[in-house]
Amino acid sequence: MRLSDVAAVAGVSLATASKALNGSTRISQATRDRVQAAAARLDFRPDALARSFASGRSGTIGVLTHQAKNTFARPVIVGAVLQLGEQNQAALVYDSGASEPKAMTDSIRELQARRIDGLLVIGSGHEHVSPSVTHYFDVPVTYVFTASSDPDDVMYLPDNRQAGRLATQHLIETGCTKIAHITGPRASIAAERRREGMVDALTEAGLDPAVPVVYGDWTRRRGAEAMRELLASGAEFDAVFCGNDHAALGALETCAAASIRVPDDVAIVGVDNWEGTVVDQEGSRQLTSVDPELMELGRLAAANLLTPERAPGEHYTIPSLVVGPSTLR
Amino acid sequence: MRLSDVAAVAGVSLATASKALNGSTRISQATRDRVQAAAARLDFRPDALARSFASGRSGTIGVLTHQAKNTFARPVIVGAVLQLGEQNQAALVYDSGASEPKAMTDSIRELQARRIDGLLVIGSGHEHVSPSVTHYFDVPVTYVFTASSDPDDVMYLPDNRQAGRLATQHLIETGCTKIAHITGPRASIAAERRREGMVDALTEAGLDPAVPVVYGDWTRRRGAEAMRELLASGAEFDAVFCGNDHAALGALETCAAASIRVPDDVAIVGVDNWEGTVVDQEGSRQLTSVDPELMELGRLAAANLLTPERAPGEHYTIPSLVVGPSTLR
Repeated sequence: MRLSDVAAVAGVSLATASKALNGSTRISQATRDRVQAAAARLDFRPDALARSFASGRSGTIGVLTHQAKNTFARPVIVGAVLQLGEQNQAALVYDSGASEPKAMTDSIRELQARRIDGLLVIGSGHEHVSPSVTHYFDVPVTYVFTASSDPDDVMYLPDNRQAGRLATQHLIETGCTKIAHITGPRASIAAERRREGMVDALTEAGLDPAVPVVYGDWTRRRGAEAMRELLASGAEFDAVFCGNDHAALGALETCAAASIRVPDDVAIVGVDNWEGTVVDQEGSRQLTSVDPELMELGRLAAANLLTPERAPGEHYTIPSLVVGPSTLR
Repeated sequence: MRLSDVAAVAGVSLATASKALNGSTRISQATRDRVQAAAARLDFRPDALARSFASGRSGTIGVLTHQAKNTFARPVIVGAVLQLGEQNQAALVYDSGASEPKAMTDSIRELQARRIDGLLVIGSGHEHVSPSVTHYFDVPVTYVFTASSDPDDVMYLPDNRQAGRLATQHLIETGCTKIAHITGPRASIAAERRREGMVDALTEAGLDPAVPVVYGDWTRRRGAEAMRELLASGAEFDAVFCGNDHAALGALETCAAASIRVPDDVAIVGVDNWEGTVVDQEGSRQLTSVDPELMELGRLAAANLLTPERAPGEHYTIPSLVVGPSTLR
């Protein structure tokens, strides 16, 4: 089966058939659909190299990571390379944070020489802004798990605000009305967005925060201490939304030591749903948590990279709530 | 700067210069060194496509994963794709355990069509044996974080035996002489090898196991229960080597509840050194643990794949001991 057969059946020229199968946006959607239907009917499967020549694409996507040793970046990288694989695209991954870092300019020169079809810049969270490298490339560039210094770049980020909203809505739905908040550093963008999401949910339910926000450093130790401070303050509360799982586990510890029943006296929710943290290997779960869906974040960004649906600005994954014994009454 | 200049300076033919720069083993090491020195002196940098044509290599390595959602497989995958990137090789990653799995035969056909230079099959631990797919390819295939059904295949695995030995040697060095062992299921290959490593270290030190091995299921809950059983048995012991971190954390819980001081009364070591489990985000560490170096495992396998040093059978990473408050007296 040859491309000319597909073109004949679809009633278009060879060039149009080629463009249609390579997903070119320079021809109408209707023509693309007709050609693709003809190709499917004829079971037309061009070999990968022929495809690459015809499309002018290398089939390789560049991936620049900042700090691949960052635990949270790993599921993002794995999600991205798996999605690329499903699209039959290879990933050329350079890490500027490795022990022998490839200098950024070196990486850029190599990626250009490899004629990549697109580039994913994968960071290590919302706290750091990546310098935009978009202007070095004439192919699409997307920033994943990091903001870009250029607000017109395409960015994929976890939805921290929605995470805070989900956690708080869940506490309200289980009957809590006096919700305290223990979280990370005041300067953290992730902490601030999660707090805003909490305020959204409280406002929607006509509730006020039970006590002022207790800031910390994301650690278990500080979570335990913050919980002791909340208890010592004499404030009344029936739930604590913790900005991350470690702080939530610290809060659980303090409750255990103070004979406060969880969730009967105080319900607790965390954020991250990190397997090793909230669930042990056989799946016994300690904590209700919001999952930022980091593998999905990598997948979405990779799936969007070469499509006509690209749009500048921040795009988000939808976090999901995973219920455990710390809120299940 | 052209390849003919390099050949002239090195005093070899054009064909020999090309082979030398493409790492061919059909010419002597001395000639290779001479040509490479000339290329470096002349700052000769062929463009990637020219390199690919000259070498007959695509610059793309296939990666077949079984179950990329497996948390432990992630650092292996990330280590592999980063190492490939350092070698300027792209990774084409197919997952047969994804939600919409690419059937194995489909993946194999696609990888053949892409003319990959080599293949890494990445599994999810020592417990499962991957069916050998080596005979489908005329390029090198290496099995990583999984055994292959063909013992003559090249395999890269964590060194579970050495992990058990390291943990036990550390306990002996800190003065413990009566060492108990809590671990995973009796049928687990990883559990068995870690136990063998413990016996190695005890034997080398002229010690006997303090009590029979307590088997379990890798969970925190079972670790806590196993520790209660050990205490109730009346056996004397001054240390517990736990086969994984979750069991060790369970054991710590039981000690806390029973007012047993760790490490003064009982020292405890785990295995895995999984960030979210043994260390919280700011680095406060709860546990001494043996790190199987899973990122390094992916790196080593990727670095070895296209070298003449390939050898059939099992190859191991060197685990490392990370000391925490559960053994630090």
